[in-house]
Amino acid sequence: MNQDTICAIATAPGGAIGIIRVSGPDAIAITNRLFTPASGKSLAERPAYTLTFGQILSPAGEIVDEVLVSLFRAPHSYTGEDSVEISCHGSSYILQQVMQLLIDQGCRAAGPGEYTQRAFLNGKMDLSQAEAVADLIASTSAATHRMAMNQMRGGFSHELALLRDHLLKLTSLLELELDFSDHEELEFADRTELKTLALQIQSTIAKLANSFSTGNALKNGVPVAIIGETNAGKSTLLNALLNEDKAIVSDVHGTTRDTIEDTAVIQGITFRFIDTAGIRHTDDTIEAMGIKRSFRAIDQACIVILLQDIQRPNSTFEQFYKEIAHHLTSKQVILAMNKCDDNGINPPALLPDFIHQDTTDSWHVITISAKYNHNIDALRSLLATLVDTANIAANDVIITNVRHYEALTHALDAINRVIDGLNTSLPVDLTTQDLRECLYHLNDIIGEVTSDEVLNNIFKHFCIGK
Amino acid sequence: MNQDTICAIATAPGGAIGIIRVSGPDAIAITNRLFTPASGKSLAERPAYTLTFGQILSPAGEIVDEVLVSLFRAPHSYTGEDSVEISCHGSSYILQQVMQLLIDQGCRAAGPGEYTQRAFLNGKMDLSQAEAVADLIASTSAATHRMAMNQMRGGFSHELALLRDHLLKLTSLLELELDFSDHEELEFADRTELKTLALQIQSTIAKLANSFSTGNALKNGVPVAIIGETNAGKSTLLNALLNEDKAIVSDVHGTTRDTIEDTAVIQGITFRFIDTAGIRHTDDTIEAMGIKRSFRAIDQACIVILLQDIQRPNSTFEQFYKEIAHHLTSKQVILAMNKCDDNGINPPALLPDFIHQDTTDSWHVITISAKYNHNIDALRSLLATLVDTANIAANDVIITNVRHYEALTHALDAINRVIDGLNTSLPVDLTTQDLRECLYHLNDIIGEVTSDEVLNNIFKHFCIGK
Repeated sequence: MNQDTICAIATAPGGAIGIIRVSGPDAIAITNRLFTPASGKSLAERPAYTLTFGQILSPAGEIVDEVLVSLFRAPHSYTGEDSVEISCHGSSYILQQVMQLLIDQGCRAAGPGEYTQRAFLNGKMDLSQAEAVADLIASTSAATHRMAMNQMRGGFSHELALLRDHLLKLTSLLELELDFSDHEELEFADRTELKTLALQIQSTIAKLANSFSTGNALKNGVPVAIIGETNAGKSTLLNALLNEDKAIVSDVHGTTRDTIEDTAVIQGITFRFIDTAGIRHTDDTIEAMGIKRSFRAIDQACIVILLQDIQRPNSTFEQFYKEIAHHLTSKQVILAMNKCDDNGINPPALLPDFIHQDTTDSWHVITISAKYNHNIDALRSLLATLVDTANIAANDVIITNVRHYEALTHALDAINRVIDGLNTSLPVDLTTQDLRECLYHLNDIIGEVTSDEVLNNIFKHFCIGK
Repeated sequence: MNQDTICAIATAPGGAIGIIRVSGPDAIAITNRLFTPASGKSLAERPAYTLTFGQILSPAGEIVDEVLVSLFRAPHSYTGEDSVEISCHGSSYILQQVMQLLIDQGCRAAGPGEYTQRAFLNGKMDLSQAEAVADLIASTSAATHRMAMNQMRGGFSHELALLRDHLLKLTSLLELELDFSDHEELEFADRTELKTLALQIQSTIAKLANSFSTGNALKNGVPVAIIGETNAGKSTLLNALLNEDKAIVSDVHGTTRDTIEDTAVIQGITFRFIDTAGIRHTDDTIEAMGIKRSFRAIDQACIVILLQDIQRPNSTFEQFYKEIAHHLTSKQVILAMNKCDDNGINPPALLPDFIHQDTTDSWHVITISAKYNHNIDALRSLLATLVDTANIAANDVIITNVRHYEALTHALDAINRVIDGLNTSLPVDLTTQDLRECLYHLNDIIGEVTSDEVLNNIFKHFCIGK
């Protein structure tokens, strides 16, 4: 692979240390031209996996910075190429100057994700592992971290490898049948084994595809709608729920704060709380539009917290409930009876008579005080238990990537057609074609058949320097 | 020095790579307990200045990250202690987890500047060098970078060492005289040599102290006031001047934007442009307050750009000029004749008759068009040449630190008293005391006599991880 040498600042501006990454055939030679080691020993003579202290000098001989240079030699580096990491003082001015010097010496400023793209192209990782690198960097909770780490370390790749083995076995069995089918005197082979294998493949692909709804919710935050009448205490509850981890969340989401809803990490799971202010019966057109939006938020939520002000008559709440009831179908609903402290009467956590539990709903009742922080921890724990994390506790593979989900869906369609074919005595060569298509979509996930356009699209969403 | 082991995230949140620094007697042992090297060879066995790839594991055996560990052994590290740098994926979640593990294993989260403070306490650098580290990281232009780099590399320390040698020589000569003065029969020694030496010391200290006004302006940006009548084109000119480097400036100052004036880097020098809208004669109290503030801005500026709309009658401008003339004393003034294009008549760049140049003023005239970007580059160059950078071109030491300036001022007072004493035959022991005081203040700069309180105050303004 005859590639150019790329450079990029790999740290965010503003820290004590700034790192510049250089990778490519001339990485060591170019850095060597700018670098004067304190020991006098040139970088080219230093062994791999060493650190060398020295100065970066401008062509005019001015000291740009005192730096530490980390040395990596192909193929034993992240990208698989000769690589250098220059650890500078964390001044944007210095980092820009060093970048300029590297570019003047023949480096090219790297695009987003170009280091990881090279790692993929040089066979250091498959595409699903490369994609997990970006997910790992973006991870903000134990759950997203675990899923990304598992995927980066090849958990998903391993499942796919097993699937492909089974598909190849099935293909060869079918092709054997195809060979013999010319001899009309021979009976058709026993298809039990074929069908068992195909069903096994189908079950694995379906399990992976189905994990996407969990994975996606965990990755983007499990959507929770807090609904209730005006003054039921929605804002107070939201603040109480966010309070614990607000600082950490701000740290992480700081830059995209204006585009996301408020999130909080509870027991390692990110929850995304959706504002649904103002649901009530109205004839006002504008207000009705707002309420429509609120209903849409409920529809998108996995969990609905239904907030009741226990100091108001049950009849008011009943009326409110009737307005929204049909939106709660197939949701996890928490009825939170709020303001339980103000009058000293703390009613038992019982579902009111007028709530008729649909078989597809799942109701939970809790008495809380958002204002006095009573039972909020219990509510948090309840939220955490409602998220089905049973299947991420072990090393089970969870799909979090839409591209993978789509490929799996296509693969599932193909294997379903294979099973139909086996059941309906479709010509064997058509079934073989379906099998090949199933394999094609699985190979797409690990990048074996992926087009340059798709590759570029994947890596452009990475950060610069990774 | 029996110190604990400290850890800190040394990179800003949001990059591809995140670095955690660990320093102290247990740095290697603690990291070793969390780290599983890919090669199986423990960190303790690895030589200094090497990189080791492996995993950080939680006590539960879960992989927190795949990392590269840089190893440094005392005294050959930044702090002079055993040190480790853990290069992680740049996820705030991962960095927080690794920090937590290090703290659980006995590390303490480092305070601001604590690594550099340890470097100072362990004799790796003197205090003025340590202070330059923070200036280097904060440097945003060629000028501030050069001053900080020179100071960090000991340029200032070297000047101070020479000064102290001279002071010690002067002290020993004086003490010699003191010894002999008991023998009344002896004549007083010839004081010519003493006085020459004292004047030499005085001149050096004065030169250093005087460099502070240049250094301070360069560090914080050379203040430039743009003044002119309403509609003279002040905002347009400001935008034209800022345009070139706006993006870079935003990059650097992003986080403190709301507290600083607009700055632009021109030929390696940072200029700070001060808004002085609305100077005119008025009886309105509130408006008068605003004008007072504008005059204060002019008084604080090193350079004043006086903007004249050449399409207005000279008489109007003359009236405006008379309002402000007494504020221009001892300023560098650029008379920028604006809108030179609109009517096709471009008058020669001549000072109007009514401007009587004070001997302490320095006037320059230029015709420009802020709107059509005519001669703006020439104006930029003029600004750059007006900043006295002659004495920062070479390796001359420029003081940028108020603490140093104060110490030098005290030292200058003391050496002046020494010279007075030598001239007026003051008792020699009093002059010796003044000499000691002079030395004390110079030693304060390099941290030899500096109190813990002052030290803590210096380092608390550093960033975490440095």
